[in-house]
Amino acid sequence: MRLKCTISYDGHLFNGYQVQPGKRTVQDELEKALAVLHKSKDRIPVVSSGRTDSGVHAAGQVIHFDTSLSIPTERWPYALNALLPDDIAVKQAEIADDGFHARFSAVKKEYRYFVYTEKHPDVFKRHYAYHFSYHLNVQNMREAAKHLIGTHDFTSFCATKTEVQDKVRTIYELDWTETDDGLQMRITGSGFLYNMVRIIAGTLLDAGIGKISPEDVKSMLEAKDREAAGRTAPGHGLYLWNVYYDN
Amino acid sequence: MRLKCTISYDGHLFNGYQVQPGKRTVQDELEKALAVLHKSKDRIPVVSSGRTDSGVHAAGQVIHFDTSLSIPTERWPYALNALLPDDIAVKQAEIADDGFHARFSAVKKEYRYFVYTEKHPDVFKRHYAYHFSYHLNVQNMREAAKHLIGTHDFTSFCATKTEVQDKVRTIYELDWTETDDGLQMRITGSGFLYNMVRIIAGTLLDAGIGKISPEDVKSMLEAKDREAAGRTAPGHGLYLWNVYYDN
Repeated sequence: MRLKCTISYDGHLFNGYQVQPGKRTVQDELEKALAVLHKSKDRIPVVSSGRTDSGVHAAGQVIHFDTSLSIPTERWPYALNALLPDDIAVKQAEIADDGFHARFSAVKKEYRYFVYTEKHPDVFKRHYAYHFSYHLNVQNMREAAKHLIGTHDFTSFCATKTEVQDKVRTIYELDWTETDDGLQMRITGSGFLYNMVRIIAGTLLDAGIGKISPEDVKSMLEAKDREAAGRTAPGHGLYLWNVYYDN
Repeated sequence: MRLKCTISYDGHLFNGYQVQPGKRTVQDELEKALAVLHKSKDRIPVVSSGRTDSGVHAAGQVIHFDTSLSIPTERWPYALNALLPDDIAVKQAEIADDGFHARFSAVKKEYRYFVYTEKHPDVFKRHYAYHFSYHLNVQNMREAAKHLIGTHDFTSFCATKTEVQDKVRTIYELDWTETDDGLQMRITGSGFLYNMVRIIAGTLLDAGIGKISPEDVKSMLEAKDREAAGRTAPGHGLYLWNVYYDN
C-alpha cells in the first residue's frame, strides 16, 4: 500500500532534506522512524516532492512510501510523530494510488519567503525570517515580479552548479504582501530550479531598495547568466508551503 | 550614567535569566557583552526587573546598568547586539535617573501565555507555545480567571520552594483571547510569585477542559496550599511581555 503524507519541518538544525552521509537530514530521520515502526533492519525508502536546502523550512512538504502495516490512516501521524524528532511532524496521511509519486505526480508547488524589516533583530525570528532592515518599495517589487511570471528560461535565476539542462520553468503566481513587521513573498510554479526561489527573492529585494529598476529584470532573464541576476537570499526565510497534485 | 534597556530573549537555550555557575544564562551573556564593550576585566553588573525561569521567553524584559561610556543612546542597541548571542536582543535604550531601579521601580508587569490546540504538533512552535490539543471552553476559563483578579494571598499559586514570606499580590487584568490556532492568556499585576503565572495558566486550562469548575478557583485561593491549585504549565509557553514604570 502506498501512503502519501504531508509533513512539516523546521529546517534550522538540518543539512537539508536529502540524505547525506554523516549529516542530519530530514529524509534520514523519516527513514529511520519508518524502519523502527516497521521493525525492519532495512531502511524504508521515502520519496519527497523534491529536496530542500540546508536551513530551508517546510510547512507542507509531501512524501510517499510503501508499507505493509495496517495502521488506520488517521493514526499514521500519531504513530510517526511519536518516533520522529520534534523538528519534523507529520500533519496528514492518506492512502494513495500505487501510481502516485510525490515528485513526478506534483503539478504545482508553492513557496513562501518571509522578510522582516524591523530596526533591531527579533530573537524569535532569527531562524524563521530574513532580517533586512531597509525601507522596501513594495510597488517596485511587485512590478519587477510581473516580468518573471509566465514561462521563461530561468538560467539567470539558478545556481550555476545545477546539472539540469532544461531551465525553462513556468511561474504561475508571484506576489509580495505586507505582514505585521515586513513582507511575505508567495510564489507558485510548475517546478523550481536549484536556488531559484531564493535568487528571485534576493533580486526582488534589490528592486525594493532601488538597487535595480523593475525593468532590469527583463534583461536579467534575457542574459541567461547567473551573474546577471541578484544575490541568493538566505535559506532561513524560505518555506516549501504546499505541493499540489491533480485529482 | 544609568542606562535602562528593553531586551528580548528566546528562553529555550538558557537556564533562565539569573547567573548560575557553569550554566548558560541571560544575565551572564549580558554582563560578558558589557565587559567587552567597556574593555573591563570585571563584570558590569546588570539588574533586571526580575528573573525568568529556564525556557521562559522575554519580549520586553527591562534591565539597568551603570556606564561611563559616551555612546549615543540610539547606538546602544546596535553596540550591544553586535556582541550578544543571537538569542538575546536589545530593542531600546534610554538614559534613566540615577534613582531608577529595574526591579524596585517597576509598578506593573505583564506576562503572556500561549497555548495552541491543533491536533498535531507544530514544529515551528515547539519551543514557543504549549501544545495542548484538547477542546477548551474559553467561557469557563474566563469565569475562573475572574476569581483571581484583585488582591489575594496567592500561596496556592506559588511554588512551595519560594522563600518570600508575603504572598499577597494584586492581579489587575487576566484574560484569555482566541488566536489563529489556540489561546493567549494576558495577565498584569503588581508582581508575581515564583511559578505563579504558570500555575494560574495550568489551573485555568483545567477549567477549560472541565476538570474543575470556575467556582473551584475560590476555594483554591482560600486553601493557601500549593496542592489545592492546578499543575504548573510548561515554561516554553510563557513570555515576560512588558514591565511598566511610573514617569
